[in-house]
Amino acid sequence: MRQVVYGVGISLDGYIARPDGAVDFLFMPKDYSMGPFFKRIDVAAMGRKTYEKVLEMSGGNMPSMGGMNHFVFTKALEAGERSGVTFVKESPTEWLAAVRKKKGKDIWLMGGGELTRAFLQDDLVDEIYLGVVPVLIGAGIPAFPSAFPQREYKLVENKTYSKGLIALRYERIRRKARRIA
Amino acid sequence: MRQVVYGVGISLDGYIARPDGAVDFLFMPKDYSMGPFFKRIDVAAMGRKTYEKVLEMSGGNMPSMGGMNHFVFTKALEAGERSGVTFVKESPTEWLAAVRKKKGKDIWLMGGGELTRAFLQDDLVDEIYLGVVPVLIGAGIPAFPSAFPQREYKLVENKTYSKGLIALRYERIRRKARRIA
Repeated sequence: MRQVVYGVGISLDGYIARPDGAVDFLFMPKDYSMGPFFKRIDVAAMGRKTYEKVLEMSGGNMPSMGGMNHFVFTKALEAGERSGVTFVKESPTEWLAAVRKKKGKDIWLMGGGELTRAFLQDDLVDEIYLGVVPVLIGAGIPAFPSAFPQREYKLVENKTYSKGLIALRYERIRRKARRIA
Repeated sequence: MRQVVYGVGISLDGYIARPDGAVDFLFMPKDYSMGPFFKRIDVAAMGRKTYEKVLEMSGGNMPSMGGMNHFVFTKALEAGERSGVTFVKESPTEWLAAVRKKKGKDIWLMGGGELTRAFLQDDLVDEIYLGVVPVLIGAGIPAFPSAFPQREYKLVENKTYSKGLIALRYERIRRKARRIA
């Protein structure tokens, strides 16, 4: 099944961005590559505010990332495909069920906070992939905004890169339903 | 100089405790030891709420930890030494200056949230020592409560233990004041 991977860079105090959405504190050391991550992904899901921040940072156009399908969750904007992205008004659960009916690679949950909370509330996050930079920024948009029920994960990767970046990968532990003997 | 070490166990979403102060989600795997940490510490500083939680968990008495001096920061309680702890009404900066005038080992900042914020606001945290457990608890008392100014750290240790616990150690990067030539 196509996995949902929540992949973000965060500060040591757990923020994906400053209060105004700026991500200037994040960095990518030379010995680190997003290549293997992008190879397994062909769908990117983000909230409307994150989408607008990406547009702002890229000069008004959604950066084309070889075959990546971009979905923007929005209450404010009309649903449908335009300007290289698909605007979505369904719930994450309904949207994901439809995406999983089609063959394809894994799904990148980019954030931000509100969409991530919705995915976590519905228990849709199969993997968490964090790049943690060694700085406390003191305030911002949390990577895991409360509130949602407790979710157990399993650590599957912990690597240290230069300049103090660490990359952590976790997989959701789901108890299988017990069969009646 | 005696270093201030903020040492706590946290959930993957950055909480030191559940909203009611419970820490049942934390665990200590067999291959992990706090021994080396306690060897370098002879002062423990905590907020009043954390103190009351420790008392509650230990059955009403401050656990004696071989030669450890316990300090409890409080606005509500009277200052002074009683029941094996010293209650403090000074600011963290004033208190720390007094502690550092005496010879001794390093200083453990145990939390909780409000005292940690005060230490971070005054830039008193020299080291951060985190044990991260692989669970999202969804709500609680944050390890790094906003707001305080940005603080750069350097990663000095990243170790993986069994059951997915990771231990991270960071040291504060302080720019030395430039001398006038």
